[in-house]
Order: sequence, then C-alpha cells, then structure tokens
Amino acid sequence: MNNIRVAMWGFGAMGSGIAEVLCRKKGVEITGVCRQNPKYEGKSMYEVLGIERGDRPEALIHTDITKVVYKGAADICVIATDSFTRDVFPKIKYAVEQGINVVSIAEEMSYPKAQEPELAAEMDRLAKENGVTVLGTGINPGLMMDLLAICFSGCMTDVESVMCKRVNSLSPFGPLVMKEQGIGITVKEFEEGCKNGHLSGHVGFAESAGMIAEAMGWKIDKFEQQMKPIVTGVDRKSPYGFAKAGDVAGVNMTAQAYVDGVQRIDLIHPQQIEPEMEGTQTGDYIVIKGTPNINMANTPEVDGGIGTIAMCVNMIPHVINARPGLKTMLDLPVPHAIMGDMRDMIEK
Amino acid sequence: MNNIRVAMWGFGAMGSGIAEVLCRKKGVEITGVCRQNPKYEGKSMYEVLGIERGDRPEALIHTDITKVVYKGAADICVIATDSFTRDVFPKIKYAVEQGINVVSIAEEMSYPKAQEPELAAEMDRLAKENGVTVLGTGINPGLMMDLLAICFSGCMTDVESVMCKRVNSLSPFGPLVMKEQGIGITVKEFEEGCKNGHLSGHVGFAESAGMIAEAMGWKIDKFEQQMKPIVTGVDRKSPYGFAKAGDVAGVNMTAQAYVDGVQRIDLIHPQQIEPEMEGTQTGDYIVIKGTPNINMANTPEVDGGIGTIAMCVNMIPHVINARPGLKTMLDLPVPHAIMGDMRDMIEK
Repeated sequence: MNNIRVAMWGFGAMGSGIAEVLCRKKGVEITGVCRQNPKYEGKSMYEVLGIERGDRPEALIHTDITKVVYKGAADICVIATDSFTRDVFPKIKYAVEQGINVVSIAEEMSYPKAQEPELAAEMDRLAKENGVTVLGTGINPGLMMDLLAICFSGCMTDVESVMCKRVNSLSPFGPLVMKEQGIGITVKEFEEGCKNGHLSGHVGFAESAGMIAEAMGWKIDKFEQQMKPIVTGVDRKSPYGFAKAGDVAGVNMTAQAYVDGVQRIDLIHPQQIEPEMEGTQTGDYIVIKGTPNINMANTPEVDGGIGTIAMCVNMIPHVINARPGLKTMLDLPVPHAIMGDMRDMIEK
Repeated sequence: MNNIRVAMWGFGAMGSGIAEVLCRKKGVEITGVCRQNPKYEGKSMYEVLGIERGDRPEALIHTDITKVVYKGAADICVIATDSFTRDVFPKIKYAVEQGINVVSIAEEMSYPKAQEPELAAEMDRLAKENGVTVLGTGINPGLMMDLLAICFSGCMTDVESVMCKRVNSLSPFGPLVMKEQGIGITVKEFEEGCKNGHLSGHVGFAESAGMIAEAMGWKIDKFEQQMKPIVTGVDRKSPYGFAKAGDVAGVNMTAQAYVDGVQRIDLIHPQQIEPEMEGTQTGDYIVIKGTPNINMANTPEVDGGIGTIAMCVNMIPHVINARPGLKTMLDLPVPHAIMGDMRDMIEK
C-alpha cells in the first residue's frame, strides 16, 4: 500500500509543526507545501525544516497553490491558514474541487454550522459532489472544551448542564499572541481594543457550544459571550510579555448557551501570562451535572500548540476513511495518537 | 419516521435498568423482553417495571427468545446476559441471523479479539453476511479504563505509556457482588477462591489493553494480570457487606501490557467496601506519558451500574448507523448522552 500523501497549505507555527510531526510518523509523506512568503519559493521543505530527507520524495515549497494542490496531488490537504470559516472557505472549495480531502485547523471550522450555516451547507454539498471529506479540528475548539465533555457524557443517562473551563498560560507564546491578547496594555486600552476588534481573544465558543448542543440533542435559543481583562496585582514577566501591576496580564473569555430559557452550557477560558504569580493553577476542567455527575480535572492544561498539531495529524486517517461530506468531530471515530504505521488505520 | 425498536435479551439489574432509561427517552420503544425466570412469562414489561405504559405499544416478557427476537421484530437487540464472549456468542449469532443489530454489555465483547479472535472473526463475518452491526460496550471495559484514555491521546504527538486507575467503592452493591468479590472472607479463603475460580474479580483488562494497543498501533507481546486481597485494618460495614479487621474488604486487580519488551500499559483497579474508612479516595485516574503529558482525575468515580446502562443506551443510534460488521468503540463516533429524540441521531 502506498503512503498516505499530504499536501500542506499554510506553513506558520501550526503548519510547519504539523509537517514536523508527520515527518516522524510511518506510512505518510508530504507532497508539497504552499507558503505565502516568496523567499521560500522552490525550496525543499526538508531543508527549511532542517530535517534529513533520507529516501523520502522531495516536497517543494511554492507560493502558488496550483503547484501544490491539484487533481491527484495528494490524498488530503492540511489547511493551516485562518481562524474564520469565511476566510478559509475559498481554500477548502478549491481543494475539494480537486478531489482532495481536507482537514482544517480554523477554529470556526470545528463546527461551522454555528456561525456560517450557509457556507457549511455549501461545503457539505461540494464535498459530496466530489466524493471527499472535510473536517475542522484542533485542541480548542475540537477537544478540551467540547468533544471531551461530550465523550464523558456517554456514561450519563441524563445531563442537566455542562461546564468546561480551560485555564492556560500564555507565557510560552510569542510577540504576536502577546499583542492579540492585549498583554501589558492598560485597562482603558483593552476596552478600546475590544470595541475596535483589535483584540482577538479566544475564537471558538459558539462552535464548542454548538457541538455540545448537537450531541445532547439541545437547540440553543440564546448564546452570550464576554471578554474581560485579567488585571494583575503584581508585575508579571514572560519571555515575550510584560504586564505591570494594574495593567492587563491576560483575557478572561466566558460564554453561556441557553436551551428553552435554561442555561445549559457554561464555557470559561481565562488566558494569561504567568498565572502562578497570583496563585492561579492551570488546567482543563469539566463539570457535568446529571446522572451521574462528572467532575474532571486535567492538570496542567494541554498545551494549545502541540495539542492542535496532534489533533490535526491524528485525524488524517479518520478523514480519509469517512463517508463524503462536511464532518465534525461528532461524526468520526474517537481521536487518538498514532504510534504505528498510519496506513494500518486506513480501511480497505 | 418510526421509533427505534429495541428488543431486550436479559432483564437482570442491567437489562431492566437499560429498559427503564429507554422508557424515559424520546423516539425509541421496546418491542419485547426475554427473561429466563418463568414467573414473568407473558407479563407486560411496563407492569413489572411499575412504569405507566401510556400510548406505547405493549412489550411482553417471554422465556422463549424466538417470541422476542425474530426477523423484523426490532432494529436492535440489547443483550445483557453474560460477561464472556464464549457464553454470549450463540445469542449474538442468533440475533444477527434474524437481521437484527446487537449491542452487548458482556465485558469481553468490548474487544473480543483480545481473547477470542476466532469468535470475533466469525461474528464479523456473520454480521456482514446479514447486513447488521455488533458492538460490545459498557463503563469498564468500554470507557473509563480504555476509550477515555484513547480520546485524551488524540491531543498527543507521541505516547510512551498509558496508566488507567479506577478506584471504586463496592458499598452500593448487593449480596451477589459481595460474594463474587470475596468481601468478608479471610485471606486464606481469598487465596483458595482465586485458585478455584470462585472469585471473579474484574473482567476486562485484556480487552482494555487490547483496545488501547490497537488505537496506538502497538502489538502486545506480553500481558500479565494479578488479583490480590485488600486486607482491611479496621472493621468495615456496608449495607450488604462486612469485613472485620484483618479480613478481605475488596480485591485489587492489576494488569500490565508490554510492547517489544517495554511496559506500555498499566491498569489498576482496586474495588472495596467503604474505602474512605482507610483514607482511600475513589476516582477515575488517567496518566499518559508522552508529548504532552496527560494527568487526569475524575472524582468520585463514575458509578459502574449507571455508567454501563448509559453507555449501552447511548450507543444504540451509533450501532444502527454503522457499516455492517463487528465493531468496537474505536470504530464508532464518540459516545454521548441523548437528551433529545433518539431518531434525530439516525442517518438517513
């Protein structure tokens, strides 16, 4: 059996991280890379990553997607370029029309029906028409604040409410994340940043809530989301961030979903640099009220970057095996690490 | 769309519990019950359960399976009669030959390849020949010491080892469980009971290990299992059990699986009455070493009885949707509670 062939679209921190992990796995090869920055045009991906190519086929980097994704070029295309469905939609459409399966790490793609029902319907139609599968996944949305809680509910006869809380540290992240999350700015600047959309916060609450609700069989009739500054009482310093006492050390994102007027889903996601400095323990927490109750803690939290890279790599065989159409993590078998040959997971 | 129609085979604590939960769900109905005890012959299941039948179709109890499971009788048959694949195999074969899907809560059926590869192959062949699906599930094996760890590994790029620990209380259980687990006997009697097979302990370690190994792509080359008495230092009393200081208050089951000579899977499952009396906190714990590490606790543990009932009920739509054959929890979408109409989960 031939290797699973993967085309990479997007080669930032996530795309190149996915490629590096794929290079360590058996039964899979990368066929080419599309990267915007023209300075890598025509270079070998292996050279750029600093990985010995060995007897693997060459994988060249191009700015032009038609040199990387075309009919027969690959079994699946990993798209690691955007956060929003609307932005990634034309890329997915193009890959699907080449008859190539897609896995996207755009946060909104984990449950595109939540905010883009028309684009979701169109992707489903296109995927079926071309006999391929499209999936969005990642660590959050994709696992820690949705699928994991859903999986726990499998041992419950009744569910009253679902609370997912992800308390993570932004300290490992670089300057871009510091800026997007408002690390070190004043409370007044934070409030302005929320208003003018310069602060991104977490993308994915509507998607996590939508996925949980679909699994339970709930229809959400009200959804609310808040974004508040985490004001530090002490000076905090991380490799790329600094917040002095009284300024913003992070952002506390919260959301609630209501079903028939009752709050059923509660999502809490404070992200900050150096949380330990004020006694905050990081972790992933799930509390589900019902029969029986679930009371889970995973400490410390799963690293967002590695987690998203892993989810994307590990779902590749499930996407290839799936029936055609737009899928979510609800539709496919449970995700899992792959320590053997990836081809062993492909159904004949 | 018609209700999902379920035939019940076995009506002990688990079978009747599954039926009670199904009676509270929308879009599903029970078509009949097979129960060994002749004193219920011809009675209404609703009368026996003490549930108002309302406008539901009648569901009669019979000792003769041919009156309950026959071609066209139901969409799926829930078999809640045995723990071992060898014992439940003829029942599964019969139901499958009637063209009816099967969900079994026999512990070994959660991963029958582990100990009965020939029967597993035969069930797969029969299911495909008859165009139906067979699944074994439950709380353990089925979720807490296998599928849940597997799901967590989805966010990992590399896995070195998997440890699942389930510390539960036997206090809620009745006289039969007290006897099977050796509660209140002396250490000498316990050792004899292990030798002559009178003490059952936990059934399912080989299955949990097999499921984890298949997911990771590991081939187990050595599997070991131990069964030791939990000797109490104080008198312990539960509603149906009593162990005086120095006697057996429970059983500590452990197992290890090796891959290429390295221990990769570690399963630890102490079960006892009144664990709090000697400072033992009950819970489900998962530690996965790799990139990143997972360190999970769910406290207290999920109740085994309710958990198994829920898993069985919640997997019914997934089994009906699946392609024909013998499946495991690895093959089907993630389990989840069903609070809406069960028919909404059925693919058209």
